[in-house]
Amino acid sequence: MNYTVEEKEFFMREALKEAEIALANDEIPIGCVIVKDGKIIGRGHNAREELQRAVMHAEVMAIEEANAHEKSWRLLDTTLFVTIEPCVMCSGAIGLARIPWVIYGAKNQKFGAAGSLYDILTDERLNHRVELESGILEAECAQMMQDFFRKRRQK
Amino acid sequence: MNYTVEEKEFFMREALKEAEIALANDEIPIGCVIVKDGKIIGRGHNAREELQRAVMHAEVMAIEEANAHEKSWRLLDTTLFVTIEPCVMCSGAIGLARIPWVIYGAKNQKFGAAGSLYDILTDERLNHRVELESGILEAECAQMMQDFFRKRRQK
Repeated sequence: MNYTVEEKEFFMREALKEAEIALANDEIPIGCVIVKDGKIIGRGHNAREELQRAVMHAEVMAIEEANAHEKSWRLLDTTLFVTIEPCVMCSGAIGLARIPWVIYGAKNQKFGAAGSLYDILTDERLNHRVELESGILEAECAQMMQDFFRKRRQK
Repeated sequence: MNYTVEEKEFFMREALKEAEIALANDEIPIGCVIVKDGKIIGRGHNAREELQRAVMHAEVMAIEEANAHEKSWRLLDTTLFVTIEPCVMCSGAIGLARIPWVIYGAKNQKFGAAGSLYDILTDERLNHRVELESGILEAECAQMMQDFFRKRRQK
């Protein structure tokens, strides 16, 4: 993955657009895109409430779309951009899909499994390891979550 | 969850039937059923190769079916029976679906996340904890995996 900072910010803004779809549906605002050769091959947003499906996190939705696009469960040579650090399930799914590069915006201290609670993506005991970067558009990614939870507490 | 040993073995045999479907498709033979009030509301088998979807493990397929059956992402008062210890992704999915009871047949020393590599299902830092039991029809569940990998090595 040899994207410039500008390219990384471009794709993270696309992930933020997905997070805005979740926000408009009153879902926890997390968005994701999967990129191959500079093109988006999968998009996803948290849709647990909308679809009443427990596994429909942004990353899983994007992986499902990318698997269909590639006609393969293996997402070789792809980069996954997600606004918030992946949870345990999504970190596991990223490894199972063999995604080699992951970039996330802001940490999730409560549920993150890519540095916060666990280091699933870089665990040497597992058969797939990811090159991980964080902090791209961190403030915007974190702000969207903070606004959502502030509003929810006010209700 | 107040199932007798006979009932637990009955439902694990149903999970083994699902594993046999995977085996017939030349997939790693793992099967799962989700039970509520003594009735199966979700069934699943590993279908990664058949469907070319990275997330299509037995547990995720069963959770998706149970979510549709219940018209809810929350699988309250359910028991998940799976032939082999869940991986990281599936352990995360079980927590996200709020499944309270999990019974698995045999351990997975290489990828298991419910006692082997991780203890995801009983981690007190996460917001959902599972009551876990293992060893039901352990020999049959393990044997199916051993036969599969022995045949694969011979090919």
